[in-house]
Amino acid sequence: MVTVRDVGERGLIELMMRVLTPMPSAPIPFWDDVSGWGLGDGRVAVLKTDMLVWRTDVPRGMTPFQAARKAVVMNFSDLASKGVKPLAFMASLGIPSNMEVEAVLEMARGFDSGSREYGAYMVGGDTNEAGEVVIGGVAFGLADEKTIMRRDGARPGDILATTGSFGRTAAAFKVLIDGYEAPKGVMDSILESVYMPKARVSEGLALAETGAVSASMDSSDGLALSLYDLSRSSHVGFRIDRLPASPEAREFGEACGIELEELVFYGGEEYELVFTLKPELVDSARNALRRVNCEMIEFGEVIEEIKITYTHNGEEKPIKPLGWNHFRTMD
Amino acid sequence: MVTVRDVGERGLIELMMRVLTPMPSAPIPFWDDVSGWGLGDGRVAVLKTDMLVWRTDVPRGMTPFQAARKAVVMNFSDLASKGVKPLAFMASLGIPSNMEVEAVLEMARGFDSGSREYGAYMVGGDTNEAGEVVIGGVAFGLADEKTIMRRDGARPGDILATTGSFGRTAAAFKVLIDGYEAPKGVMDSILESVYMPKARVSEGLALAETGAVSASMDSSDGLALSLYDLSRSSHVGFRIDRLPASPEAREFGEACGIELEELVFYGGEEYELVFTLKPELVDSARNALRRVNCEMIEFGEVIEEIKITYTHNGEEKPIKPLGWNHFRTMD
Repeated sequence: MVTVRDVGERGLIELMMRVLTPMPSAPIPFWDDVSGWGLGDGRVAVLKTDMLVWRTDVPRGMTPFQAARKAVVMNFSDLASKGVKPLAFMASLGIPSNMEVEAVLEMARGFDSGSREYGAYMVGGDTNEAGEVVIGGVAFGLADEKTIMRRDGARPGDILATTGSFGRTAAAFKVLIDGYEAPKGVMDSILESVYMPKARVSEGLALAETGAVSASMDSSDGLALSLYDLSRSSHVGFRIDRLPASPEAREFGEACGIELEELVFYGGEEYELVFTLKPELVDSARNALRRVNCEMIEFGEVIEEIKITYTHNGEEKPIKPLGWNHFRTMD
Repeated sequence: MVTVRDVGERGLIELMMRVLTPMPSAPIPFWDDVSGWGLGDGRVAVLKTDMLVWRTDVPRGMTPFQAARKAVVMNFSDLASKGVKPLAFMASLGIPSNMEVEAVLEMARGFDSGSREYGAYMVGGDTNEAGEVVIGGVAFGLADEKTIMRRDGARPGDILATTGSFGRTAAAFKVLIDGYEAPKGVMDSILESVYMPKARVSEGLALAETGAVSASMDSSDGLALSLYDLSRSSHVGFRIDRLPASPEAREFGEACGIELEELVFYGGEEYELVFTLKPELVDSARNALRRVNCEMIEFGEVIEEIKITYTHNGEEKPIKPLGWNHFRTMD
């Protein structure tokens, strides 16, 4: 008997996609961050659903408010990575019948607060009895078909960039799950990264306006897997020459004897945008991001060969397709 | 400590709605079957999310294919009740890591088959590790803002009607959960009603075109609760003078000594449309439904007084607000 653990989340999704009837002239292909429906007037209705499961997605110390807000951020981040403004959020909620009402109301406040933070509204949902807390989040937005940033347009010679630095969430999981002690000066920042993640909505909108982006996605499965997804959709490889590492992750890694590369590439639950830029428009993208107070980090180049490597001190190392993969990483 | 069991699903939703920021000029109010976003050109993007939880929504004997198809029907039925054609379906899926891959693929086939049955496509989703199987279903459709059938327009003197008869699912649950024996001649029909429910999509579209409907909803929570919801939204009552009972439910009730009224009013998981009609347009609605092979059943009248009664052999009995209410009915 082959179980889902044997094939992993990505393997399972590939198998499932094979049995689905593809929608003709879909504005956004399968294996992108969102789904879409062409409205016939140049606009696309953009849809995303992503489930938060308490047992795997809510680390120790996270409140019901924060968990619900995270369910919003998870879904809005995918729209953000396409350059799409989220307008509405919905949640189908599974909860145990012995859960305290006040905790559920805290979750409702988290949905509301997370939605309003990005200018959207919670417009509906559904509650159900379940054995554990699960939140089926749904995000809706509208986009101009021409400016949606898909995963499949990266070309050799394009510049690889991101909206922020990596490693804080991986450090947080080392603290919360594996029991590492973080240096005092970085503990708050590290925990904040998992308790109060941010979706890069204004950054995605700013990037989409420039027309500079050839491919984009969010990094919620970790930087390494995100690069593999971009590689798969665009049929290209990446040569990385700089580690987009957060200073806190660096300090944490040094204090705890954990390689910085591990924290940066193989984390997850980070909601930065990872994207590729037409070389002649790099400045335009950098300036657009500066206008929304975001300092773009260029960290590599798109190459023709389908491989992903990191070159450090003259040594080229392969990046492995590891990170946040449901069913497998939880074993 | 007040738990969700203490307040019940409806009580919980009321409390949650109070903490949400209402969207200005929402095309569809809270406490309707669906949510909507005005597209600015007379159209509304219509959204619905409803979760299927295996432990409560999948009766004994139902296959993974049927459960997944039901998740589609649950969501499409809500669009149907508004007169909205479903275009796309998505599912966020929670599954245990030891689940057989083939069972998940059967579910994917159920999503696909259920969507195609109504002319829609499955356009995306998400898989997650969870302790039990849960399906967060999402339906998307487009509607003309003017023809959406809401819950809040019923007026005294309107005629109460439905697309079909009630009682088969309640009988099925008596068989599957309580161990009753159904007469041989009705067993298949009774079980079919829960294993392969139908969404009244073409019926809802046909009704919306007539302009005859003043209020409408689906009956998935049971006929009694649906009438209470219509009453709540439209600020009216109902006087029922005929039981819209299925012949199979009648035969089952007689054989098993269960009151037909109980099976008809207090079941659930039935996906008929329950609606009110402007009296002068009743024929128009009946004819529109006949064109899609549906025989409309008129079974009562809208009244000003906020009460719901059933008059049988000259005796007027109150209908109770009981039925499928998560958290409470499962005790």
